[in-house]
Amino acid sequence: VSSQLAMDVGKKDSIASDSSEQVVNPWEVAAKDGGKIDYDKLIDQFGCQRLDDSLIDRVQRLTSRQPHVFLRRGVFFAHRDFNEVLDAYERGDKFYLYTGRGPSSEALHLGHLIPFMFTKYLQEAFKVPLVIQLTDDEKCMWKNLSVEESQRLARENAKDIIACGFDVTKTFIFSDFDYVGGAFYKNMVKVAKCVTLNKAMGIFGFSGEDHIGKLSFPPVQACLSVPAVPSFPSSFPHLFPGKDKLRCLIPCAIDQDPYFRMTRDVAPRLGYSKPALIESSFFPALQAKNGKMSASDPNSAIYVTDTAKEIKNKINRYAFSGGQDSIEKHREIGANLEVDIPVKYLSFFLDDDTELEHIKKEYGEGRMLTGEVKKRLTEVLTEMVERHRMARAAVTDEMVDAFMAVRPLPSMFE
Amino acid sequence: VSSQLAMDVGKKDSIASDSSEQVVNPWEVAAKDGGKIDYDKLIDQFGCQRLDDSLIDRVQRLTSRQPHVFLRRGVFFAHRDFNEVLDAYERGDKFYLYTGRGPSSEALHLGHLIPFMFTKYLQEAFKVPLVIQLTDDEKCMWKNLSVEESQRLARENAKDIIACGFDVTKTFIFSDFDYVGGAFYKNMVKVAKCVTLNKAMGIFGFSGEDHIGKLSFPPVQACLSVPAVPSFPSSFPHLFPGKDKLRCLIPCAIDQDPYFRMTRDVAPRLGYSKPALIESSFFPALQAKNGKMSASDPNSAIYVTDTAKEIKNKINRYAFSGGQDSIEKHREIGANLEVDIPVKYLSFFLDDDTELEHIKKEYGEGRMLTGEVKKRLTEVLTEMVERHRMARAAVTDEMVDAFMAVRPLPSMFE
Repeated sequence: VSSQLAMDVGKKDSIASDSSEQVVNPWEVAAKDGGKIDYDKLIDQFGCQRLDDSLIDRVQRLTSRQPHVFLRRGVFFAHRDFNEVLDAYERGDKFYLYTGRGPSSEALHLGHLIPFMFTKYLQEAFKVPLVIQLTDDEKCMWKNLSVEESQRLARENAKDIIACGFDVTKTFIFSDFDYVGGAFYKNMVKVAKCVTLNKAMGIFGFSGEDHIGKLSFPPVQACLSVPAVPSFPSSFPHLFPGKDKLRCLIPCAIDQDPYFRMTRDVAPRLGYSKPALIESSFFPALQAKNGKMSASDPNSAIYVTDTAKEIKNKINRYAFSGGQDSIEKHREIGANLEVDIPVKYLSFFLDDDTELEHIKKEYGEGRMLTGEVKKRLTEVLTEMVERHRMARAAVTDEMVDAFMAVRPLPSMFE
Repeated sequence: VSSQLAMDVGKKDSIASDSSEQVVNPWEVAAKDGGKIDYDKLIDQFGCQRLDDSLIDRVQRLTSRQPHVFLRRGVFFAHRDFNEVLDAYERGDKFYLYTGRGPSSEALHLGHLIPFMFTKYLQEAFKVPLVIQLTDDEKCMWKNLSVEESQRLARENAKDIIACGFDVTKTFIFSDFDYVGGAFYKNMVKVAKCVTLNKAMGIFGFSGEDHIGKLSFPPVQACLSVPAVPSFPSSFPHLFPGKDKLRCLIPCAIDQDPYFRMTRDVAPRLGYSKPALIESSFFPALQAKNGKMSASDPNSAIYVTDTAKEIKNKINRYAFSGGQDSIEKHREIGANLEVDIPVKYLSFFLDDDTELEHIKKEYGEGRMLTGEVKKRLTEVLTEMVERHRMARAAVTDEMVDAFMAVRPLPSMFE
C-alpha cells in the first residue's frame, strides 16, 4: 500500500507494463517483468533493515500488548533505526510519530487507511504524540486542483483520518497551506540548502538525461523539503519547545523511503536526529497478484464510501482468486494462496489469527471454496467499512478544528 | 545600481571581462566588450518602455511637485505600464509600491540606497502604501549564511531602510522568514504552478545545456516565486483585504526585469493585475566607466558606514576621472564628462540642477579641475552619509517592530 505520505507525484499506481528491473520510488512502482515486487531485493537496494521476529517480540515486551496484525503478518516488514528508537524508549526517552497524506481525492480506499490504522496502534501502544501532515500544497501544484479545492480535500481527508480513532490530546493534524511559515518554513529552507541537484538525482535514481522531465520544475524544492521538515521537532515549536533532539518515527509505505533517506542524510547536518522509519509493503489491487491499486479504476479497490452491495459485488466479480477452475480440481489440489486476493486481504484485516490459519488450511487444501472465502471477506470488509462510516459521520467540524489547532497537546507523553 | 530586489544570486556584480554581447539579468551584468551598458538596446531586448519627458511632466502635474532628481536625470529611465498606473491614479484609483532587498551584508553602499530614496519620493508624492520585502530566506539559501544570521542582517538592513525616512503609517517591512505562510504561501504555490521549466529558461535566457548549473537546485522555485508574490495584493490580507485588483508599482534596477516579466506573465492567469515597473540604470563603481559596484572590493564603493576621511580618500584615490593628464591640456580641451565618475555621482546626488549644470560646463570646458569636482562630491557625499548615519542611529528596536508588525496601516491612502 502506498501511505500516500507526501508525494506520489505522477506515480503509476498500478504495476507497470513489463520492465526488466523493478522500480520502486515515490513516483513509480513497477515489478520486474510485470510480476511480484521482490521485497527482499528492495531491502538490499534501499539499504534498510528487515523487521524481524526478535524486534516484534521486543515491541510486545515493551508495550505489554499483542503486536498489531500488520506487524504479526509482515505488512510492515522493513525499518531504519526502529531498534534505536526502542533502545531509547526502554531508557525512558519518548519519541513522536509522523505520518501524512496527499489529499488528492475525496474517497479513501482501504489501502489509504493502512498507515493510519497502524499509526493509531503505535500511538496507543507507546503513548506518544503524533503529527499528521496533509500536503495540500503539493497536490495543488501537481494535480489540477485549486488552492481552495486542495484545502477542502485536506479537511475532508482529515475527517477520515480522525475516524481511525486518534487521540486528540496527543495528535496534531496540519495542512501545509495552513501551517507552512515560521519555524516550519525555516526548516524548509535549511533542508533545501542541503540538497544539491546531484544529490537529489542520485537518491531518486535519476540520470542527467531524464531529470528535466522527471523532476519537473519548479515545485521540486517543495517536493523534497516539505515531507522532510515534519521529521524535525523544531518544526513544531508549540509541541516540542526545547526538545530539538526528540526522535521521530515515521510509519510509511516503502516507496516513500527515498524521501526519508534524503531526510536522514540531511538531519545531522542541521543538528537533528535522523528520523526512524517503519515501512510497509504495498496493499494489492483486487485484480492483481501484486502491485498497487489504481486510482483511475474504481473497481480495483474497496473505498470507505462503498455500500455493502458494492463491496460484495467488487469482491465477487473482481477479486483475483487462487482457487481452481473446477470444483473437482479445487477439491483435489486446493487454492494457490500465494496469488489469492481474498486470503491476502483477510491477512490484512481479519484480526483472529486462529481463524485466518483455519481458512488458509481449509482453502489451501481444497476443502473450502473461493465463494466461501469471498463471503467471509465480504463480512469482514463490510463491517470494517460500516464502522468507519459511522465513526466518520460522528466527526464534527469542531473536532477537526481541535485536531488542527496550533496549541500544546495536553497529554502528549502520558 | 542593483536594487538588490530579491535575487542577485551568484551575480557578477562588476562588469565582466570581455563578452561579445551584453548580458543583463538578475545573476549577471556584463557590457559588450567590457564597454558601457547599452541601455537603449536593453529596452529593445527586454521589451520595456522608455520613461520619456512627457511621462515625467505628467508625474509633475499629478503630484504637484518637482520630479525626483532620479527622474529628471534619467536614473530611472525605463518602465512597464507606469502610464497605466498614472491613468488610474488620475481617475482616483490608488496603487501600492513594492520594493525589497536581499540582506546579504551588513553595510549598505550608496547604490543600495538609490531604490529606497526613490521609493520614498514616490510614497510621499503619490501618498500610497508600500511593502518592502527582505529576502532573508533566499540569502540564507544562496550565500553561506545561517537562518539566524540572515534574519539578523534583515533586521539590520531594515534599520538602514527606515533611516531613508519612510512613513510608518504607510509602510510594511517584512522578512520572508517571518512572513511566509498563509495567504503569502498560497500565492507562492500558485505562482510556482504557472512557471514551467521551459518558461523559466526562456525568460532568463538559459539554454538546455547550461540550466543545471545556472538554475541550481532546488531553491529555484523559491527564487522565482518569492519575488513575484508581493506583486499581488492578496499576499497582504492585513493590508489590502478585498482589494485584489489593486495595482502594484515596483521601483527596481533594470537587471530585475526578468523576474517581473515572469510575474506579469503569470498575473492575469491568477486573476491579478500585472505589476507596473519603473526601472533604473546601474550605479557605477568608483573605478569603472560603467557597470556595477563589486561587493568584494570595498574601495569600489562608498558605504553608508564610511567615515568622512574614508569618503574623501576613496574619492580622491579611486574615483575615475575624465580630466586630462596635465593641467595645461585640461585647460585646453576640458574633461571628458562621459567617463568622469565624480560628475556621474554628482548627477545622482547633487539636487541643485543649476549647480550641476555649472559644474559640468566649467569642468567640461577645462576651467574647473578634477580636484575641485572631487572636493564638491566629497562634501555632498559626506553630508549625505552623515545624515544617514544620524537617521539610522535614531532608529530604535521599537520602530523596527512597528514597521514589521502585521497589522493594518493606519493612513494607507491618505
